[in-house]
Amino acid sequence: MKITSIYLDHAAATPLDERVLSAMQPFFTEFFYNPSSPYAPAIEVRRAYEAAKQVLAKQIGAKSDELIMTAGATESINLAFGNIKGHVVTANIEHHAVLEAAKLRAHTLISSDARGYVTADSVRAALRPDTELVSIALANNELGTIQPLRDIATVIKQEREDRLAHNNTTPLYFHSDASQGVGQLDINVARLGLDMLTINAAKIYGPKQMGLLWAASHVKLSAQIVGGGQERGLRSGTENVAGTIGFARALELATEHRVYEADRLRDLRDSLQERLTAAFPEAIVSGHPKHRLAGHLHISFPNIDGERLLFSLENRGVLVATGSACAANKGTRSHVLTAIGLPEKVADGSIRLSLGHLSTKENIAQAGQIMIEEVRREYDRVSR
Amino acid sequence: MKITSIYLDHAAATPLDERVLSAMQPFFTEFFYNPSSPYAPAIEVRRAYEAAKQVLAKQIGAKSDELIMTAGATESINLAFGNIKGHVVTANIEHHAVLEAAKLRAHTLISSDARGYVTADSVRAALRPDTELVSIALANNELGTIQPLRDIATVIKQEREDRLAHNNTTPLYFHSDASQGVGQLDINVARLGLDMLTINAAKIYGPKQMGLLWAASHVKLSAQIVGGGQERGLRSGTENVAGTIGFARALELATEHRVYEADRLRDLRDSLQERLTAAFPEAIVSGHPKHRLAGHLHISFPNIDGERLLFSLENRGVLVATGSACAANKGTRSHVLTAIGLPEKVADGSIRLSLGHLSTKENIAQAGQIMIEEVRREYDRVSR
Repeated sequence: MKITSIYLDHAAATPLDERVLSAMQPFFTEFFYNPSSPYAPAIEVRRAYEAAKQVLAKQIGAKSDELIMTAGATESINLAFGNIKGHVVTANIEHHAVLEAAKLRAHTLISSDARGYVTADSVRAALRPDTELVSIALANNELGTIQPLRDIATVIKQEREDRLAHNNTTPLYFHSDASQGVGQLDINVARLGLDMLTINAAKIYGPKQMGLLWAASHVKLSAQIVGGGQERGLRSGTENVAGTIGFARALELATEHRVYEADRLRDLRDSLQERLTAAFPEAIVSGHPKHRLAGHLHISFPNIDGERLLFSLENRGVLVATGSACAANKGTRSHVLTAIGLPEKVADGSIRLSLGHLSTKENIAQAGQIMIEEVRREYDRVSR
Repeated sequence: MKITSIYLDHAAATPLDERVLSAMQPFFTEFFYNPSSPYAPAIEVRRAYEAAKQVLAKQIGAKSDELIMTAGATESINLAFGNIKGHVVTANIEHHAVLEAAKLRAHTLISSDARGYVTADSVRAALRPDTELVSIALANNELGTIQPLRDIATVIKQEREDRLAHNNTTPLYFHSDASQGVGQLDINVARLGLDMLTINAAKIYGPKQMGLLWAASHVKLSAQIVGGGQERGLRSGTENVAGTIGFARALELATEHRVYEADRLRDLRDSLQERLTAAFPEAIVSGHPKHRLAGHLHISFPNIDGERLLFSLENRGVLVATGSACAANKGTRSHVLTAIGLPEKVADGSIRLSLGHLSTKENIAQAGQIMIEEVRREYDRVSR
């Protein structure tokens, strides 16, 4: 008999929402035309594509001609960094895509605090006269810590004014990878004070392999993929019509249910956290206690083996992550847990629970019970 | 009443085959897991992904760890060119993606002959001691002309031997964009004598936004998109599982029906060509008379306006292209027609017909009749 699993890894992947699939379906087989073709059915496809971009733009408070559609957050991040020749400031807890792009340039890695929080002061301290880009994620994918982007934007604005006063014409852009925050947080680019924003569809029950980079009109980008000149010459290749339409529908749904869903997930997460920390007073919850994604719970059980725990939970039908999925199958310790200074014995006993659409009051209660039993069994084993 | 259209633009886009969609469907909502996650359902997804890559590899006679999955032919081409610092040889009739990538480097554009044919001798003449890459498409997307890749491979092999004899250690790679040939031609990489091959799924009734670059193990590539290190570090970003599975199914179907389908399309195309040239003896068929894709018919009606013809055909329900879809909505004359030296008055009266799965004996006969009527009407108009 197949065990019905309780999925607690929404930060790694989300199932495609049926409503999103329905929106995409006609563009697979019926309206399959190349949006660059000149006849009416293809022009209809082009219109549907442009309309979807407008929906996406509206959700983030931008103009649709400022969006470049990509194959996911990683490509968007690479595009955001592509034209940067000068110094880059980012944090040591960022996603690998940002860290690897930063490594190709002069860069400063800010240390987050023990909660995975990147303060505006630490950004200010890292800025140099030749800094061209600050890239800070909206929320950390392992800990769920939400960063103070508005405060950082204020620091960047001050720096720009200083440069103006000192005749330093080096441009300074503020980019955020918001892959993990969409659907739970406000992502209005003006309110966040950004110049560039990366989001993707795969984390919000949309199609995989679908992302976008928003770049304000004053940002100078350079094409990473050249060819037919689609997306204003910044990302050539036939447009992903079905994917963009699915992305738009997914973001629309995420925005519509954002406040309700965040409240719902926070209640579920808090009840789970209380239950686990009550059962195991030695457990350590990481991430910012207040500024944290509603569905995230990063918890460490000192001295036990998180990977063993993951597999024993899996045997009971509960699917969790040990760390970021990208690093998960490499057998290396999470760079985020090292960065926040978690001792090895604590870090190695960590699991990340990320709640989402598949979480219900019932299955979270059940998961809590199973976790208590399995963590206890692990502690019994190591203390023997 | 909606006119049922006769689609004669398979070279621009193809509808997703229902069998391909069926293969992909489970990976949208049920097996949605991140292939990098460590639990069993995600490992199943990883296995399905790897199995699909093996199917793809087998179809082209390669090993699956030599494939890098991408978001389409344009990205694949950019990746193939990415690590090239030296001189590049390509042809003046190549797709924009190849031409734009070549323009970023020292390059020589070979002139094709009037049939759009790129001879091995012309490649030999263009080689320089610092040439690192020769990139010639398997078949031209506008004319359908099939290039003599094996002969070109022989020239390249000779050049490599010469270099060895002269202690010239500059590597020389042979890449082919086979986007237009898949499903009609043999694409075994060893038989073609290639080092790198680009193909995509969108032209073979597979998912859009899905391509691959095959690179022999001796080829040194550099990552264009950095991050989590997927695809052997050469193309980061969560893998496109559903897309790859759809691509594999599409290529399998294309290979299975290749000979039958090519024969079927050739018969249909030839009958259409005969009918049109019989009705209009002044019509000029471009492309190689013998080495030409079975479904392609590029035909010019001197002195009439191809774009007007396209729209009058569309009014009668027949969808055709004026040129390459990428260039189609830019109002510029096709660079391919200029390259083969077609006089303006001929080039401007051109349409490209590309047959495929949606073509039947009945609708091709019907399209032929409509075309004869509409071309005649255009000639009547211009001679008034």
